[in-house]
Amino acid sequence: MSSNDTLERLAQIIESRKAAHGGDPDKSYVARLLHKGPDAFLKKIGEEATEAVMAAKDIDHCGATPELKGKLVGEFADLWFHSLVAMAHYGVTPAEVMAELERREGTSGLEEKALRKAQHREAAEKS
Amino acid sequence: MSSNDTLERLAQIIESRKAAHGGDPDKSYVARLLHKGPDAFLKKIGEEATEAVMAAKDIDHCGATPELKGKLVGEFADLWFHSLVAMAHYGVTPAEVMAELERREGTSGLEEKALRKAQHREAAEKS
Amino acid sequence: MSSNDTLERLAQIIESRKAAHGGDPDKSYVARLLHKGPDAFLKKIGEEATEAVMAAKDIDHCGATPELKGKLVGEFADLWFHSLVAMAHYGVTPAEVMAELERREGTSGLEEKALRKAQHREAAEKS
Amino acid sequence: MSSNDTLERLAQIIESRKAAHGGDPDKSYVARLLHKGPDAFLKKIGEEATEAVMAAKDIDHCGATPELKGKLVGEFADLWFHSLVAMAHYGVTPAEVMAELERREGTSGLEEKALRKAQHREAAEKS
Repeated sequence: MSSNDTLERLAQIIESRKAAHGGDPDKSYVARLLHKGPDAFLKKIGEEATEAVMAAKDIDHCGATPELKGKLVGEFADLWFHSLVAMAHYGVTPAEVMAELERREGTSGLEEKALRKAQHREAAEKS
Repeated sequence: MSSNDTLERLAQIIESRKAAHGGDPDKSYVARLLHKGPDAFLKKIGEEATEAVMAAKDIDHCGATPELKGKLVGEFADLWFHSLVAMAHYGVTPAEVMAELERREGTSGLEEKALRKAQHREAAEKS
Repeated sequence: MSSNDTLERLAQIIESRKAAHGGDPDKSYVARLLHKGPDAFLKKIGEEATEAVMAAKDIDHCGATPELKGKLVGEFADLWFHSLVAMAHYGVTPAEVMAELERREGTSGLEEKALRKAQHREAAEKS
Repeated sequence: MSSNDTLERLAQIIESRKAAHGGDPDKSYVARLLHKGPDAFLKKIGEEATEAVMAAKDIDHCGATPELKGKLVGEFADLWFHSLVAMAHYGVTPAEVMAELERREGTSGLEEKALRKAQHREAAEKS
C-alpha cells in the first residue's frame, strides 16, 4: 500500500472500529454505526447522496464560490466515507473498487457501450 | 499504485472529455453526460446510491457470495465514478475530497462530536 | 373525486398489469417493470426522489414559474407513481398508507415527539 | 373537496404550520422543518426514499409478514408526508399531482411511449 493511500488508511481505521477489533459504540461514531447495523449506514448513503446533489445545484445557480465548493467537497467526503463504512461491513476494500474503475478505464469499448445505450435511450425519448 | 493516483487519473480522463478539451458527445459517454448538463449526472448519483444500497441488502439476506460482492463493488464503482464526473464539472478534485477525509481523520474530537450528536438523537428517539 | 379515489384507481390499474391478471410486458410499461422485478422499480424510487429534489432546488433559485412548478408536479407524480407500483408488488394499498397518515395526524403527541427529536439533534449539532 | 380527501387535509395542516399562518418552530415538527428551509425537508425525501427501498428489500428476502408490511407502509407514509411538506413550501397542491396522474392515465399512448423507451434501453443493454 502506498503511504499516501488515503482510502486504504480510512478503511483500516474503520476496520479497527468493528466490535471484533475492540471498537466501542460509546466512544466512536463508526463503531456505533457498525453496531446499529446495515440499515443505519446504508440510509446515510441515500441521505448524503441527496445532500451532494443539493450542494451541486447551489453551485449551478450561484456559481462556484469557495464556500459552495467547500460545501460540495464536504458532501462528497460524507458520501464516500459512509460508502467506506458499508464496504468494511461487507468485506469489500477500496482497492477492489479502484481495480474495477481501472478495469473499465482500460477496457476499450466500455465507454462506447455506455454511450450507445445512452443514445438509444435519448432516441426513444425523442420519438 | 495508490487509490489517490487512480482517482486523479480518472479525474484527468474525465477532464479531457469536456467540450473545451475536445470531448465529443457522439464518441464518449462522459462527454455526453457533461454535454447534457448537471441534472443528467446528478440524477445518476441518486440512482447509483440506491443501487448500491439494494446490492448491500442482497448481501445482508443472502450472504457475501463472490457474485453479490462483485455486484456491490460494481455499484460503488458506478457511484464514485459519477461523483467524479460531477466533481470535474464543478472544478473539485479528488485530492480535495481526500484532503477533507484526511483532515477529519486527523482532527481528534471530530468522531467524538459525530458520536455525541448520534447519542443525543438516539436518546430522543427513545424518550 | 378525492385523492384517495385517484390513488385507489391507479392501484387497480397497476394491479391489472400483473402477469397473473394478464398484464403483458410487451404492451405495458407497468407490466414490464413488474416483470423485470423489484430492483427495476425500487431503483426508480431513488431516481425520481433525486429528480424531485433537483426540480425543487431550481425553484429555490429561480422562483416558482409555471414551467418550474409544472416540472416539480411531474416529478412528484413520477415518485408517487413508482411508489404505487412497488406497493402493488408488495400487497400494500394506498388506503393503508392514507390510514397511517391519518393515524399520525390524529395522534396528538406524534408531532411533538418528532419535534423533540429534532430539537435534541440540533442541540447536539451546536454543542 | 371530498370529506375523505386525506392528502388535501394533510396539505391544509401543513399550510397552517407556515410562519405566515402562525406556525411555531418550537411547537411543531412541520413548522420547524419549514423554518429551517428547503434543504432540511428535501434531504428527508432522499432519506425516506432510501428507507422505503430498504424495507422493500427486506420483504423480497423474508416475505411479506405483517411486521415488514407495516414497516413498508410507514416508510411510504414518511416519504409522501415529506413530499407534501415540500409541495406546501413550493405552492403545489396534492390535487395538482393527482391531476397529473389522472392525465397520464387518461392519455392513451403515454404508457406505450414509456414502454418503447424502456424497450430501446433494454435492447441497448443487450447489444
